[in-house]
Amino acid sequence: MDKLSTMHRVLMGPGPSDVDARVLEALSRPTIGHLDPAFLDILSKIRELLQDTFRTGNELTLAISGTGSAGMETCVANLIEPGDAMVVCVNGVFGQRMADVAERYGADVTTVEAEWGRVFSPEQIAKALHDKSAKVVGIVHAETSTGAGQPLEDISRIVHENGALLLVDAVTSLGGMNVDVDGWKIDACYSGTQKCLSCPPGLAPVTFSPAATAAMDQRKTKVQSWYLDLSMIRQYWGSERLYHHTAPINMNYALLEALQIVHEEGLEARWERHLRHHRMLKAGLAAIGIEYVAQPGYELPMLNAVAVPSGIDEAAVRKRLLEEYRIEIGGGLGKFKGKAWRIGLMGSSSTHENVLLFLSALEDCLADQGFGFDKGASTAAAR
Amino acid sequence: MDKLSTMHRVLMGPGPSDVDARVLEALSRPTIGHLDPAFLDILSKIRELLQDTFRTGNELTLAISGTGSAGMETCVANLIEPGDAMVVCVNGVFGQRMADVAERYGADVTTVEAEWGRVFSPEQIAKALHDKSAKVVGIVHAETSTGAGQPLEDISRIVHENGALLLVDAVTSLGGMNVDVDGWKIDACYSGTQKCLSCPPGLAPVTFSPAATAAMDQRKTKVQSWYLDLSMIRQYWGSERLYHHTAPINMNYALLEALQIVHEEGLEARWERHLRHHRMLKAGLAAIGIEYVAQPGYELPMLNAVAVPSGIDEAAVRKRLLEEYRIEIGGGLGKFKGKAWRIGLMGSSSTHENVLLFLSALEDCLADQGFGFDKGASTAAAR
Repeated sequence: MDKLSTMHRVLMGPGPSDVDARVLEALSRPTIGHLDPAFLDILSKIRELLQDTFRTGNELTLAISGTGSAGMETCVANLIEPGDAMVVCVNGVFGQRMADVAERYGADVTTVEAEWGRVFSPEQIAKALHDKSAKVVGIVHAETSTGAGQPLEDISRIVHENGALLLVDAVTSLGGMNVDVDGWKIDACYSGTQKCLSCPPGLAPVTFSPAATAAMDQRKTKVQSWYLDLSMIRQYWGSERLYHHTAPINMNYALLEALQIVHEEGLEARWERHLRHHRMLKAGLAAIGIEYVAQPGYELPMLNAVAVPSGIDEAAVRKRLLEEYRIEIGGGLGKFKGKAWRIGLMGSSSTHENVLLFLSALEDCLADQGFGFDKGASTAAAR
Repeated sequence: MDKLSTMHRVLMGPGPSDVDARVLEALSRPTIGHLDPAFLDILSKIRELLQDTFRTGNELTLAISGTGSAGMETCVANLIEPGDAMVVCVNGVFGQRMADVAERYGADVTTVEAEWGRVFSPEQIAKALHDKSAKVVGIVHAETSTGAGQPLEDISRIVHENGALLLVDAVTSLGGMNVDVDGWKIDACYSGTQKCLSCPPGLAPVTFSPAATAAMDQRKTKVQSWYLDLSMIRQYWGSERLYHHTAPINMNYALLEALQIVHEEGLEARWERHLRHHRMLKAGLAAIGIEYVAQPGYELPMLNAVAVPSGIDEAAVRKRLLEEYRIEIGGGLGKFKGKAWRIGLMGSSSTHENVLLFLSALEDCLADQGFGFDKGASTAAAR
């Protein structure tokens, strides 16, 4: 691990984001037992801070012992029984993934599609539920593959008018923009630790509303996944403290510290910071003629997906950014592979300095490939 | 997290075990991206060291992004399709768990039972496979709930003579006693990081033989769990380096360091150390009249499950050990709840000093409850 100890990166990809030294320090504290009262106290504090971050009073709020995709699978696995109808909204990789997961759990899946980068209108969801009723509607709040942010309030109203439960992917949004679980009446919501919470990857915050919990309690079949079965996991996080599996102790230390940092900054100040640096970056990119792939007006503040200019070898740019500037950005995923860059400004990575550094470094890499623009235009625009 | 920073425990329960400072330091190194070439290099090194530790040349050897039970579920999920026949050997909590997991994945499960604490004879397995053929036979190598160690070589021969695949739970044994995946012809094997590897919990080492991999490749249905689907995960760990989910970066740093420590000590020296301290503890416990619950001759070196003497409030003893001596031991699980203690001597926790400290502390706690024995007999016996 010698090389690693001298390694330094500026993490401006689709996650993980830069991790605060306080969180790394917490991660390295001595491991204790998963039934030690001192550790159970940490779990209680995590739940409380997760409730604050999700803006919910949901009792069933906890961190699943896996990464964000395990959070997705937990929500689907616990809400869906074989044969249950589910509508999944697909406008990017993570909507596709949710449909795949739902099918594996035996759901009768109907997909509603939108062009990649575009968001769904409430009418589209209304039409889908008019055509066929569903137990659950799944939708991605912040589609990490396209950089589009999905408004949820009107859709939530329609979903509930049709008697369905609303399942929301907030992997990339939580901690970087408003995710108002109670206000928007979201029934099940999951996230990851390595995006705007700026904790290393390894845990998936999840919250279930009373209605989602009731649906889970009324199941006639066991949850297909033992590891993700909330009916057992909640007896460990709850007052029963029944052993289910050995929780990832140190990762939970780190999550608690990361959530405390979020709490100290304040949710609204944090959202505002993400938005401010997004606007700086956007102005800088516009000055050199680089455009977002997401529908105008719906660009995510923390995940800036932009079109690679024609004639540019996008992989060579990312390689040079990483090797020379130590900046990581993401390539395109799925349909956008080779066509987009994904520039993250998440959590601790969302800083003024990172925006300026990235713009200068990008201009340098583009100039080398003969891309024509006024040198320095972008950083001036971003100031 | 103030309290935690001053917290110190001697971890002598069923895991987690004490984590070496080198591993904690590795855990706290700066997070980098899951597709960063430097991180992919770490994954390759982990695979190589896991192959050494499992004593296998299996190409499909990697760490699942979840704790030991996720490793169990990964093996079952990838080998079993709905309707497949599986024999599960049950002589404790973890055999029960495997049967539960297998049923959730649609297996047609036949259980073979042995009394808790006893091991299975090859004849029992032969009879079960004579009565009904099976695709997979699942068995626990080191049953953490009873402290019994299961010999596997003869059983493996019988399983293969009957055309089945052998699935082995090595959560508690790997790194603390011989787990000879290739020598014993184990087809699928999983472990956890927090036992004899002395890494914090959060990852599950898994290895699949060519025969198990072929069975996986011949599936007609998708693996029920998306998160644990090895057909995708192996394309990330393999040369394709295809994104599946964001790996728990820092946990993998820690696992690499923990495996390097195992490698530096040497497998045989490590097994011998575990055995030596087990014998010391056993002699000490015998001197004060405390007996093992596992079948004589099959006691595990790393997990010493003993009967609570009659008249002793076992929970009070554990509480005092933790609060006064900062020693964690485990209570009984399942049928042994309230009747057994589980004393771990795993990985970094398996030391001469810990054996002596524990025996002295236990005598003190027992004396307080009026338990009669010659004070000091146990530590003298253990020297």
